[in-house]
Amino acid sequence: MRVMVLGGDGFCGWPSALHLSAAGHDVTIVDSLVRREIDCELGVRSLTPIHEPAERLAAWREVSGHDIDLVGLDIAHEYDEFAELLAAVRPDTVVHFAEQRAAPYSMKSPRHKRYTVDNNINGTHNLLTAVVALGLDVHIVHLGTMGVYGYESVPVDLPEGYLTVSYPGRDGKMYSREILYPTQPGSVYHLTKSLDQLLFQFYARNDGVRITDLHQGIVWGTQTGETARDPRLINRFDYDGDFGTVLNRFLVEAAIGFPLTVHGTGGQTRAFININDSIRCIRMAVESGDTVCGAVRVMNQITETHRVADLARLVAGALGGEVHPVPNPRQEADENQLAARNDRLLALGLKPIPLDSCLLTAEADIARKYCDRVDTGRIPSRSYWNETRKSVVEEQEV
Amino acid sequence: MRVMVLGGDGFCGWPSALHLSAAGHDVTIVDSLVRREIDCELGVRSLTPIHEPAERLAAWREVSGHDIDLVGLDIAHEYDEFAELLAAVRPDTVVHFAEQRAAPYSMKSPRHKRYTVDNNINGTHNLLTAVVALGLDVHIVHLGTMGVYGYESVPVDLPEGYLTVSYPGRDGKMYSREILYPTQPGSVYHLTKSLDQLLFQFYARNDGVRITDLHQGIVWGTQTGETARDPRLINRFDYDGDFGTVLNRFLVEAAIGFPLTVHGTGGQTRAFININDSIRCIRMAVESGDTVCGAVRVMNQITETHRVADLARLVAGALGGEVHPVPNPRQEADENQLAARNDRLLALGLKPIPLDSCLLTAEADIARKYCDRVDTGRIPSRSYWNETRKSVVEEQEV
Repeated sequence: MRVMVLGGDGFCGWPSALHLSAAGHDVTIVDSLVRREIDCELGVRSLTPIHEPAERLAAWREVSGHDIDLVGLDIAHEYDEFAELLAAVRPDTVVHFAEQRAAPYSMKSPRHKRYTVDNNINGTHNLLTAVVALGLDVHIVHLGTMGVYGYESVPVDLPEGYLTVSYPGRDGKMYSREILYPTQPGSVYHLTKSLDQLLFQFYARNDGVRITDLHQGIVWGTQTGETARDPRLINRFDYDGDFGTVLNRFLVEAAIGFPLTVHGTGGQTRAFININDSIRCIRMAVESGDTVCGAVRVMNQITETHRVADLARLVAGALGGEVHPVPNPRQEADENQLAARNDRLLALGLKPIPLDSCLLTAEADIARKYCDRVDTGRIPSRSYWNETRKSVVEEQEV
Repeated sequence: MRVMVLGGDGFCGWPSALHLSAAGHDVTIVDSLVRREIDCELGVRSLTPIHEPAERLAAWREVSGHDIDLVGLDIAHEYDEFAELLAAVRPDTVVHFAEQRAAPYSMKSPRHKRYTVDNNINGTHNLLTAVVALGLDVHIVHLGTMGVYGYESVPVDLPEGYLTVSYPGRDGKMYSREILYPTQPGSVYHLTKSLDQLLFQFYARNDGVRITDLHQGIVWGTQTGETARDPRLINRFDYDGDFGTVLNRFLVEAAIGFPLTVHGTGGQTRAFININDSIRCIRMAVESGDTVCGAVRVMNQITETHRVADLARLVAGALGGEVHPVPNPRQEADENQLAARNDRLLALGLKPIPLDSCLLTAEADIARKYCDRVDTGRIPSRSYWNETRKSVVEEQEV
């Protein structure tokens, strides 16, 4: 299959591109490389020493014998070039990772909020418009987020994308209808993925575009079977307050002997998935594209859920370290329940890798190996969701 | 009250700005004047001879004694200037009309789709971001559309923005929750107003921004008490296939002795409101801003609903003319039911102006007065919703 991977130089995009290439697909990466620029902007770098794109691709050719093309292009702002590329490559599948993906980064300042909305919405919409204009029969696989669902007050197992609800008609009878799950995004970043859902709904209905939206949980882990084949292929590992995700932050903190910082009570329950499962899910979504028609296919790309405080205790137990609560910069509930279905990916063959202490130890080894690259000043999140959160955090820190 | 009217040079914006000024509010118009450029792009002009912005404002000063400022600025792409202006004016209310508002225009080509999404989403988001960044206590009144609701299969009176639905929890019990009405937009334009709803939901929740979203029906009529005070104040009247709305198109067709063109069976039911009611609703929304807190206030800005075929017969009966079905360029149901609540604006004092033959005759007089300005080639809509609609229309026209 010809697969175009938008955002194929990033944390999920890179190992997915390699995994698809290893599986025999003909992969073209399209990436503006803005994520590397953001490292410069923030004055931070991946814990792992990632290599330049050209070195990565040369290394992959050496170890696998497969070629991957990389086109440097901003899909949100270079529409004509992007449409030309789509017309030339005529992919069977486009995997779309090309969005700003960090909630704290999206909340840092007016500029960051505006960048996230402009980049993510125009990028997704340019893809949809170009596919329709070119009349391509292409399957779009998009990385969404579990964050579109928000955190429910109703004790429900989150379904996959859709919810059947009842409400009274004017005749007093109850009627049922299946709707997109009502979205309650908790950051500008999550908001953009909620907006994406409506873009997808419209283009699926009006133009019959075939789309899979993968609502992914928080990814943990770094290396995959493919990225571990050569040091030049090593994957990105973010630990900073903007792009670092919670479990990876705990691993770095444990590795360098820092307290494990939990936001607030740690009562937030979140969904998780290992990077190796994530890339396999992407491949399964790509390879099952023929079955997508009509409404957007939504699949929850998760394997388990944990309370953040429990995760911290698990890491502390396996690797040593103390758990240390810090004021929460985010506007969110202190505590929530979360349970979600992942039947669709299980049916496609997902065999979840459980979060256990052996794997944590292996990940901690990576963190220890590169711990001289850690800038501890960059671990705390300094993105406040609003003025109230900022004052609360500043007061508590005094 | 200090009121900033974004898009205050347009069809609804201009008479609203005058009406607010006449009511004693201190009005600043912000407008990029792109709507006048689009007339040039499409090679069409308002049926009524609208005057240059400076002439309009001078005329208003002469007849009313009130000053209105006009700032030429593109809120979607000149953020810094827009934020500076907000900081200088410090409005109590911002009325937001500054969006591309024609469904057919939004569907003409990839460029038009992309322009509509980019302009409307970035414009709305820039406003929200700036208001939060500046810490302004401002009430935003936004012109939404009834089109966000889509057309229901369930016989329901469309509520105002929210719907209480029930669904089973994991314990098998039924739970109730109030959600934003599930959106089913029918064009890229309507899609952008659905996206706006999610932007508003987020900024109301995260930052406490006070917002009223007015879901307006199709506006008919041209002149208002204020615009009729001087010929230089005359309002825009669009009759072309892109910006002309259905009733105004019928009036022009009747005035020039053309058949009244109905898309398809004319079985589409739509909601309507007279321009004079529309501007009064805007004023009522502005003046009741103190009551808005917490969730976004949504009000349906409509007064009645009609089947399009019935409207055509009503106009033909009052003014003469034949009704002529033409192939429908839009991807939409041939027939739909529509009934909607408008209790909130009624409670604020709305006294609906009914669509009757006297008013139609008065509107037809305007159409007849300027009928030498009509380019009949511009009446049909040549914007096809998708390739299927295009082929169907072309086949039927052969």
